[in-house]
Amino acid sequence: MFKKILIANRGEIALRIIRTCREMGIKSVAVYSTADEESLHVRFADEAVCIGPAASNLSYLKMSNIIAAAEITNADAIHPGYGFLSENAKFSKICHEHGIKFIGASAEMIERMGDKASAKATMKAAGVPTVPGSDGIIEDFEQCEKLAEEVGYPVMLKATAGGGGKGMRAVWKKEELKKAWDSARQEAAAAFGNDGMYMEKLIEEPRHIEIQIVGDSTGKACHLSERDCSIQRRHQKLTEETPSPFMTKKLRTDMGNAAVKAAEYIKYEGAGTIEFLVDKHRNFYFMEMNTRIQVEHPITEQVIDYDLIREQILVAAGIPISGKNYTPQLHSIECRINAEDPYNDFRPSPGKITVLHAPGGHGVRLDTHVYAGYTIVPYYDSMIAKLITTAQTREEAINKMKRALDEFVIEGIKTTIPFHRQLMDEPDYVAGNYTTAFMNTFKMNEPEEE
Amino acid sequence: MFKKILIANRGEIALRIIRTCREMGIKSVAVYSTADEESLHVRFADEAVCIGPAASNLSYLKMSNIIAAAEITNADAIHPGYGFLSENAKFSKICHEHGIKFIGASAEMIERMGDKASAKATMKAAGVPTVPGSDGIIEDFEQCEKLAEEVGYPVMLKATAGGGGKGMRAVWKKEELKKAWDSARQEAAAAFGNDGMYMEKLIEEPRHIEIQIVGDSTGKACHLSERDCSIQRRHQKLTEETPSPFMTKKLRTDMGNAAVKAAEYIKYEGAGTIEFLVDKHRNFYFMEMNTRIQVEHPITEQVIDYDLIREQILVAAGIPISGKNYTPQLHSIECRINAEDPYNDFRPSPGKITVLHAPGGHGVRLDTHVYAGYTIVPYYDSMIAKLITTAQTREEAINKMKRALDEFVIEGIKTTIPFHRQLMDEPDYVAGNYTTAFMNTFKMNEPEEE
Repeated sequence: MFKKILIANRGEIALRIIRTCREMGIKSVAVYSTADEESLHVRFADEAVCIGPAASNLSYLKMSNIIAAAEITNADAIHPGYGFLSENAKFSKICHEHGIKFIGASAEMIERMGDKASAKATMKAAGVPTVPGSDGIIEDFEQCEKLAEEVGYPVMLKATAGGGGKGMRAVWKKEELKKAWDSARQEAAAAFGNDGMYMEKLIEEPRHIEIQIVGDSTGKACHLSERDCSIQRRHQKLTEETPSPFMTKKLRTDMGNAAVKAAEYIKYEGAGTIEFLVDKHRNFYFMEMNTRIQVEHPITEQVIDYDLIREQILVAAGIPISGKNYTPQLHSIECRINAEDPYNDFRPSPGKITVLHAPGGHGVRLDTHVYAGYTIVPYYDSMIAKLITTAQTREEAINKMKRALDEFVIEGIKTTIPFHRQLMDEPDYVAGNYTTAFMNTFKMNEPEEE
Repeated sequence: MFKKILIANRGEIALRIIRTCREMGIKSVAVYSTADEESLHVRFADEAVCIGPAASNLSYLKMSNIIAAAEITNADAIHPGYGFLSENAKFSKICHEHGIKFIGASAEMIERMGDKASAKATMKAAGVPTVPGSDGIIEDFEQCEKLAEEVGYPVMLKATAGGGGKGMRAVWKKEELKKAWDSARQEAAAAFGNDGMYMEKLIEEPRHIEIQIVGDSTGKACHLSERDCSIQRRHQKLTEETPSPFMTKKLRTDMGNAAVKAAEYIKYEGAGTIEFLVDKHRNFYFMEMNTRIQVEHPITEQVIDYDLIREQILVAAGIPISGKNYTPQLHSIECRINAEDPYNDFRPSPGKITVLHAPGGHGVRLDTHVYAGYTIVPYYDSMIAKLITTAQTREEAINKMKRALDEFVIEGIKTTIPFHRQLMDEPDYVAGNYTTAFMNTFKMNEPEEE
């Protein structure tokens, strides 16, 4: 087993990993930027090394500084958390070259799954459903028309060189195809100097449902059921739950089997997540694979009663997994509490927390790196806490979340607590009737008078 | 279902009950003494009524004030928590007479189980093992000698009028019996003017293991496994765990069956606890029954994944229980954090909490009514928080408790956090090798330098 793990991250996830290290009797090394000197991850680690100034590219993304910190503290492994260098193939490789175990995917695996086209091709080869469409560039309109018939309307035309929505057209009927084809190519040519187009089936108002998997060095994998992450704003997840209210026994079996097949096909080692789009007919399509721990991993931990960070460390140390798939018997919800003003278009609200009272009691878990007196710096992402409730049923978990949000006092900054509190009363949310389009029509109520 | 429940208690248990009321959509009424105005239970309840000054007998024990508070707020039920009026037959009866549901035992049940002799006789009749001994007063030394042989040494001679250890003798061998008999009778006659003696088998350094039961109005009962509460100081429990490290499958089955038999024999309604003494040979003997929720109930909740306060409310509303007995699959430990100085004979340490940082994360639950800025008043018991950790194994739960205790910051007062932290490293505790005698030889280490 590792003797000392350096955590190449900050905030709640750094603290999360330090906690598990402590519980496993493994020494921990925190790294921090000058802006994070007062952070709890610095205080609770056994050692802490300053790796640079506030700007991430000079500290949390600065590989040489992190490797140097690992070498001077004699750490034998690095846990990258999520974000930052967690899915950086080069960093994974450098760790390996320095004889430091990277607790995450190999460089090859990150490259393979990080490139969307290569990931999709791999999944297709593994027999996992992917979004139907053209294999690469469409030759001409004739082929385009034929493909659209095969794939079935609605379809998406996308510029191969595209980005930012440019050169993209959703097409709902055959009659609209020619016009869309012409205008998209024109737009793509103008924007990118390249009018190459490809086609994908348009998944209308899908659910975003992901399957947590764990694989080990023997090539064995298992799945730990799903998380529904459809409540998103500008592709940022806001709240997650397991089980998905949309799930059926058959769909879980099918998605779980597909995820395990995928993981075993690529011989995936460690904890990973396979993200799927699920349409209203419960067809599911591979979207992407995350070769790291996810922000929302605690809801899975709550319903399976074990520690996923511990599992990551054990697998990295070469210990085989039990290999049992899991069907959740409980219901768990996570609300991401951000230092943002939900009444003002979720504008970031850094500053000093003057008062903090944490909710507690039965079925409540709080993961946070902040405390009364802590100043939230504007350099990093705005998440300051993850509030997780767990109960026998979805209704009870929602009720528990409501009362926990009501108890949660944070003064000095604006937070998304009022957003979550309102969400927990929204009829469509309560009914489990939501897709990734949910936030498009969501409006905050007027703030309550104090 | 009840519309509004008044909580006739204070501190963490009042808050605990209010939380469940909120989650169930039931309005809550807090009552408070003038000393508790700033307490969280007052802030988080839907309504709050001041019922008198600091002294308990003028507020939390003042039945007329509590009933008046229930009547003016139109509460249809009263939850008494633990302590105070929770096992007061008269109060149960008064509630009933006022048409207010007492969420606890009936007056008759409290009387039957509250009197030690009557409880023991009832349990014996139900076929539950009780401590062997004389049926009432021993006639003469000849009978005494005969009884001691039957019961088996060691035995305890006890004055029927006794108290405070007067007129009590432990006898380990036949040769010592005569001398003990004479001196105990002499002492009893001098102290109480009554030399009547009875005999009980001496249970040497027993474990205190209790079984949580729930019964419903149909007469059905089930058990939710055990809690080991052997770590006690002057009969005050300090820390509890489930499962008991001393438990075997057979012993759990036998104790569980005995507890269910007892509960069904007396047609017990609600949540209750049957406390047993368990000797080193794993013989167990009925000690007493608590007809209320226990301080240590959360560890059971953690391993069975459900809410015992909710269960109490459901049963009180006449809803039948599922009736399934439970075998724990997880391990849970509770540390009672008291405002006491463990370096100074656990002397109470009331005062203002200047800084409070609560531990959190995976497997950590905290039940507390205090916060930064809260002043602990000297009028009530000194417990300020219950820290509970839960994991797959006992070793992991202990490691989790250590790191949670390390994270727990309370400044301004002394607390028992250092005691618990040391306990979690004591070889005999870690080995699960402890009895109610454990604290007799426990010594605090020197405090660490700051």
